[in-house]
Amino acid sequence: MAEDLITEELLEDDDYALDRDTVEPILAALREGDSEALAKLLDPIHPADIADLLEQVDEDTRIRLVQLYGMEFDGEILSELNEGIRESIIAALHPEVLADAVRDLESDDVVDLIEDLDDPQRDIILDALAATDRAAVEQSLAYPEESAGRLMQRELVAAPEHWDVGHVIDHMRAHDDLPDQFYHVILVDPRMRPTGYVTLGKIMASPRTAKLTEIMEDSFRTIPVHQDEAEVAYAFNQYHLISAPVVDEDDRLVGVITIDDAMIILDEELEEDILRLAGVGETSLTDRVRDTVRARLPWLGVNLVTAIIASLVIAIFEDVIASFVALAVLMPIVASMGGNAGTQSLTVAVRAIATKDLTSSNLWRVIRREAAVGLINGAVFALVMGLVGVVWFGTWMLAGVIAAAMVINLLVAGLSGVLVPVLLERLKVDPALASGTFVTTVTDVVGFFAFLGLAGIVLL
Amino acid sequence: MAEDLITEELLEDDDYALDRDTVEPILAALREGDSEALAKLLDPIHPADIADLLEQVDEDTRIRLVQLYGMEFDGEILSELNEGIRESIIAALHPEVLADAVRDLESDDVVDLIEDLDDPQRDIILDALAATDRAAVEQSLAYPEESAGRLMQRELVAAPEHWDVGHVIDHMRAHDDLPDQFYHVILVDPRMRPTGYVTLGKIMASPRTAKLTEIMEDSFRTIPVHQDEAEVAYAFNQYHLISAPVVDEDDRLVGVITIDDAMIILDEELEEDILRLAGVGETSLTDRVRDTVRARLPWLGVNLVTAIIASLVIAIFEDVIASFVALAVLMPIVASMGGNAGTQSLTVAVRAIATKDLTSSNLWRVIRREAAVGLINGAVFALVMGLVGVVWFGTWMLAGVIAAAMVINLLVAGLSGVLVPVLLERLKVDPALASGTFVTTVTDVVGFFAFLGLAGIVLL
Repeated sequence: MAEDLITEELLEDDDYALDRDTVEPILAALREGDSEALAKLLDPIHPADIADLLEQVDEDTRIRLVQLYGMEFDGEILSELNEGIRESIIAALHPEVLADAVRDLESDDVVDLIEDLDDPQRDIILDALAATDRAAVEQSLAYPEESAGRLMQRELVAAPEHWDVGHVIDHMRAHDDLPDQFYHVILVDPRMRPTGYVTLGKIMASPRTAKLTEIMEDSFRTIPVHQDEAEVAYAFNQYHLISAPVVDEDDRLVGVITIDDAMIILDEELEEDILRLAGVGETSLTDRVRDTVRARLPWLGVNLVTAIIASLVIAIFEDVIASFVALAVLMPIVASMGGNAGTQSLTVAVRAIATKDLTSSNLWRVIRREAAVGLINGAVFALVMGLVGVVWFGTWMLAGVIAAAMVINLLVAGLSGVLVPVLLERLKVDPALASGTFVTTVTDVVGFFAFLGLAGIVLL
Repeated sequence: MAEDLITEELLEDDDYALDRDTVEPILAALREGDSEALAKLLDPIHPADIADLLEQVDEDTRIRLVQLYGMEFDGEILSELNEGIRESIIAALHPEVLADAVRDLESDDVVDLIEDLDDPQRDIILDALAATDRAAVEQSLAYPEESAGRLMQRELVAAPEHWDVGHVIDHMRAHDDLPDQFYHVILVDPRMRPTGYVTLGKIMASPRTAKLTEIMEDSFRTIPVHQDEAEVAYAFNQYHLISAPVVDEDDRLVGVITIDDAMIILDEELEEDILRLAGVGETSLTDRVRDTVRARLPWLGVNLVTAIIASLVIAIFEDVIASFVALAVLMPIVASMGGNAGTQSLTVAVRAIATKDLTSSNLWRVIRREAAVGLINGAVFALVMGLVGVVWFGTWMLAGVIAAAMVINLLVAGLSGVLVPVLLERLKVDPALASGTFVTTVTDVVGFFAFLGLAGIVLL
């Protein structure tokens, strides 16, 4: 079967992808409506993988699967689902199943789950929670979207900074409501302002009489509760944080963010940049045709405008092209090389801005370097295309024109590849979002103008 | 100053970037050769930020800074540096400073540091290590590059699975050589095969008589020592692991990987994909002109070949263009729209393959969806360009031709955007690396062929 030709080996060597041997029996149990077999098959599978499975099957199968799974449905599956299909699954779940599923989640997961839901669905879930959990979730929702306040968990372990190891061990062992996951004890002053933290490992390894301040970690950073989550992810990645206390405007401890949450944000931010650089809006593979069209059409519309601008440049030189049709054959080469060189340098610049590696200390050196690289690459391809021009069309003039246009366009590509993202950043526009359009417009216009303009001067 | 116009606001609002107020005094102390002032200024700065500073200044300043910093130089700075400039800094460091700096590092950081160094530099660092550390590093280096074996640390805490909480607490408190960072106690059977793990938090919260097996975590995954590091990062991200035991072929415990290492790999893998999708080889902002040219030239060379192929298609229709120069004006629009639509769908497909979201379960549905999206977007822009064609050139025939070519090319763009990466993956070629070239070749060739071919039939 042709289908197998493509799909069979796609999964080979993959240690973690859902393979056919896992998926087929599940679909068979579903077809037979055998809920017991289904539960037994899904039980050993991680909720993240069950979520992936739900995303990969078609909508009908998805709904039937969720309904046949019934009371076994795990709240974590909801957390792992793409937003697109999360809503349809919540709508398909029996209210009792949904309430049961949500009650098992930590408060930060509930926040993540409901922040994108419509009000009716949000209310169903909030109503399912115990009063204290609901209060915690509602407090988190009071913080702005994509802020540290939304990301943090409120469950944490703090100790007065004057305590010793014995004191904190006894305290922890006396409390039966410690968070499920915690790695540090946060030291606070009498006003609940964090002053440092101690790892559980250090507490284990130290004598009972050791002061917590003696064994606290050197590096210690607090995160302001209103900080953007992208900055939070940057801090975790840059400083190798495992967890960090979150503080309010008065520097008082209000929560804690752990590295696993920061890793999810880092992953999301990078994925978003990849899609934006490719001119795709927020989208995923599970989106319906309508959503996909909506995510891509506006970008193609912008591209159409820039393509028409480039065409207007060509139109100026219609007479030149009419005299030398060879120009029409060669002109896309100059534009294409400029577009590619521009994309190379803008991508490096966009990433350098995102990772804070492009700053006032090195901007001018980077610009000079891009100019040098553009000139060198331009010279190399000028030589190649000059030769191609001579061999193909037998005219030195044409060869000279395309060579000169190549150098000009690759130089401009390198420069605009840095300057456009830097200026966009200054104008508070996401460089990943808009740089590509501007840079290719520049390289198309300059490419056609240089090539056809020079041709007009030299050849006519 | 023009310089300020661009750079000044670039840094505003950035909580973590090195700002001028930090950098200027450091450079001033360096100019004055004041090593005491320099040490005092650098002391509160995180090694990761010092590394960034070194990357941002020019080479001369970099070397003088390192040498003036002298014995205060922290080994962690080396770990944080880009590979490109790491070598030059190691060469510039006094051997005694280097030895001192390296001795403070954990064995996995030393491995990361030296795996890309040339033999002489590698030997200098290995010689600086204590014999036991050197043995650990050399053992890690025996594993393949980019494998779990290189990533793991050997320092870990394991306990027999039959122990209770009191037992493991006493054991930990009796040992003074516990790792600096650990979050879990790994349970092992008598043959040292890991069977589960217990978080330190749970140990703290449980009575001394509780069996470790009673409080161990539900989810537990071991990582094979030869697994590719990209797969390791996937597993941590997918299953929200905090740390995971690494096992050899006999399932015996040989090390542990923690989430902070996995986060670094995840970040690297995504950065690599971004650069590859943009046709840039391994590169960084600190690379010299020569290295940058070397990273970009091959890709531009490949692009030149595909651009020439597209030109050959145009050349077939020279006569048609000679009769209707308007075709030369409009033809780049069709190609450009196809290229952009193709990039959109290939980027989504490449990411879906990387995150294992595109599998045999949904490939054919995704292909059908891309076809539908291509047809819809094609129809929209066919309408728009048809109107533009009529208004601009006043001919319905030309408008019809460009409309038809638009639909054809956007359909082909959508289909090739999925099929090319899937086939490359099957052929064991990284789809991020090569998809773009193939897809734009297809959309250029199809775009020019459809537009000029139809024009030849209809207009002549």
